[in-house]
Amino acid sequence: MLSQYQAEQVLELPHHVVLPGLIDAHMHTDIGICRGLAQDTKHWMMYGMGPFDDALSRKEEILGSKVCYMEALRAGTTTFSDSNVIPEQTASFVEKLGVRACLTKEIRDACYKIYAPGELYEFDSNMGSQSLQEGLEFFDRWNGCAGGRIKVFLGPQGADFCSPELLAQIQTLAKVRQTKIHMHVQQGSRETAQIMQRYGKRPIAWLNEIGYLNERLLAVHLTDANDDEVRQMACSGASMIACPGSIGIIDGIVPPSVVFQDAGGIVALGSDQAPGNNCHNMFNEMKLVALFNKIKYQDPEKLPAWRALRMATIDGAKALGLDELVGSLRAGKRADFIAVDLTAPSMMPVYTAPMRNIVPNLVYSARGSEVSLVCVDGKLLLAGGKVLTADEPTIIAEAQACVPDLAARAAKAFWEVNGTNAALMREDKL
Amino acid sequence: MLSQYQAEQVLELPHHVVLPGLIDAHMHTDIGICRGLAQDTKHWMMYGMGPFDDALSRKEEILGSKVCYMEALRAGTTTFSDSNVIPEQTASFVEKLGVRACLTKEIRDACYKIYAPGELYEFDSNMGSQSLQEGLEFFDRWNGCAGGRIKVFLGPQGADFCSPELLAQIQTLAKVRQTKIHMHVQQGSRETAQIMQRYGKRPIAWLNEIGYLNERLLAVHLTDANDDEVRQMACSGASMIACPGSIGIIDGIVPPSVVFQDAGGIVALGSDQAPGNNCHNMFNEMKLVALFNKIKYQDPEKLPAWRALRMATIDGAKALGLDELVGSLRAGKRADFIAVDLTAPSMMPVYTAPMRNIVPNLVYSARGSEVSLVCVDGKLLLAGGKVLTADEPTIIAEAQACVPDLAARAAKAFWEVNGTNAALMREDKL
Repeated sequence: MLSQYQAEQVLELPHHVVLPGLIDAHMHTDIGICRGLAQDTKHWMMYGMGPFDDALSRKEEILGSKVCYMEALRAGTTTFSDSNVIPEQTASFVEKLGVRACLTKEIRDACYKIYAPGELYEFDSNMGSQSLQEGLEFFDRWNGCAGGRIKVFLGPQGADFCSPELLAQIQTLAKVRQTKIHMHVQQGSRETAQIMQRYGKRPIAWLNEIGYLNERLLAVHLTDANDDEVRQMACSGASMIACPGSIGIIDGIVPPSVVFQDAGGIVALGSDQAPGNNCHNMFNEMKLVALFNKIKYQDPEKLPAWRALRMATIDGAKALGLDELVGSLRAGKRADFIAVDLTAPSMMPVYTAPMRNIVPNLVYSARGSEVSLVCVDGKLLLAGGKVLTADEPTIIAEAQACVPDLAARAAKAFWEVNGTNAALMREDKL
Repeated sequence: MLSQYQAEQVLELPHHVVLPGLIDAHMHTDIGICRGLAQDTKHWMMYGMGPFDDALSRKEEILGSKVCYMEALRAGTTTFSDSNVIPEQTASFVEKLGVRACLTKEIRDACYKIYAPGELYEFDSNMGSQSLQEGLEFFDRWNGCAGGRIKVFLGPQGADFCSPELLAQIQTLAKVRQTKIHMHVQQGSRETAQIMQRYGKRPIAWLNEIGYLNERLLAVHLTDANDDEVRQMACSGASMIACPGSIGIIDGIVPPSVVFQDAGGIVALGSDQAPGNNCHNMFNEMKLVALFNKIKYQDPEKLPAWRALRMATIDGAKALGLDELVGSLRAGKRADFIAVDLTAPSMMPVYTAPMRNIVPNLVYSARGSEVSLVCVDGKLLLAGGKVLTADEPTIIAEAQACVPDLAARAAKAFWEVNGTNAALMREDKL
């Protein structure tokens, strides 16, 4: 067998399983430096993220993002679909680190201000033009770069945060540029209320009317969508990205991925963000999507391990439009793979007959630390417990060094907002 | 400060958090060699475990158990409450490994045979006497041994598997020996049906009638108990052991730990077993108990991180009656502690103000591999990535070497039972 092939390097991996690299289809790594500051609270956005989000500097966004890439890479993520406010810096880092990425710069024309309940967002066409322009410039600069490892999507922040004109422009431009639209869809009651008040229909009906329901759409969350809406979305050819860990912590809700799949749709998995998940680890998302749906349906056969593994590999690749390149191990695809150590106690023992137990143990037992090797595009990025293409200890140290300043800037708002975590601090529970 | 103390050894642990060792209050490590063979199926006992359980040899039980101890120790478990059929061998291994354990030998007098639906179990008083005698002999031989690290509980297998006479004897003997009764309670509809048919009441009412509801009882699961029954149990002084991962996978149910706690009861966490969890990792159980209850109540504030951490530490110690020895870091308690590396990307960055984020990150982000040091009773058991008191590579290799024989013995029954996993194998999904 081996004599048929020529290789620059031969890796010996006894007692390992080799898998396609894992695909994280929805991340916001730019708020990674706020890990662990926004959970166990109602109104995640206001009470959890609010005080810290407002205080973030560009430097902190960049360093926090890099920490998240280290974390995810160590747990076998090879494709990062990252929607954030620092796409240029992320693209440069992705190029250097050697991972594969789908990057999205968020586009919106809803003004940043405090809105009263029931007040419609105000649109600013100049802001919209500039935001769109920046998104397109980023696309033109980076799409297809890093040896084809970087792909750029267009990213309207949400149907509620964009005027109908802006949404129409984005749809047209995505078609011309043959790229995907990566956006949150029906992610909560606030979005639904805005769209209902403005257009007299619910978000998915509105998106259908303006031509958004098609195979270019990556619909993230669908938290507030009912089953009929989920089926309508699935049948349109759009893909869904479910973020079980994040939506579980933030909303206490199980995303409707089973309904989407049962209607024939493709569902990818995403880790969302470190503040309010609190991790970027696809082993975590595989496990949670399986367990949450068993509980949601009170049925232990719901969402079996093999399906969770597909969601984090080939289905992720299909959703992102990368399935000709990655998502499975086939001749002709790019060499994005990971090796998992089967001698780790959590993976032990290994059966191949009468039943193979590797997939159940990957989904229900592995933590991510069993990944001993990561390769993207034929290049080793992690081996021997070390990230080979970035200076991880320096990234860690620099990110930690940001904390005192950031904490000082956020402290006043943290105590003024006086959310659940402020109460827990006063009670000495944290 | 340091000059006040004398120490044989001084450990430098920069950028670590030191925590009480984690307490796994309910395990069956004797079936650990079947990891990953029993999930994603209805009727876990019959379709999942059945074909393999019947085939297990003593040697396989012992080796599988040792693998589970390696796994749990690496994830920071220092106290193992293990109910199994190999208590002698487990006690010897616990003594050598250096962990703390509460061991239970199961006692029953219901005959082992296939019962038709609705048929009452047959009790055999000779079998009961022998079973009880063995349990008592094990108690007398091991309780208080290994420098006080081993404690022995009495373990009626369930109210349905023991005659009223045997249950009464156990209750009396537990009182005399001042130990706990570690048993599954109202763990499913089969148990409820047996007790209803035999005594005309539900299991918790029956246990109340025969004097079982008191502080000596460790009530495991309560899966089939209604809220009133859970409250009655909590108010009696009994403790509950919730196994979220196992019951989630096996039944698709969230154990009623919040109701138990709200009624003032103490709830510990347990990992149950590797086939149908599929892991022994208290970081997993902390995360799942928090997330499952947020989902159960659709409330992100339900079961916050600090509470999950207490369940795996001090509440576990209280449940097991060990809180004067372990479960928190206080002068006078035994030195059972773990150190968690805060420079792992999953724990980064660390905030101490305005909000401390270490506890949320331990519960929601850590995988267990961040544990870099484990100490029990003042003795280091794990450091530098190595288990210091057992030959882990040999245990792993010997456990794996059992597989071909065990698989061959189980194959016929696996295909005859023809459960969901047999179907998944035929469909090439595993």
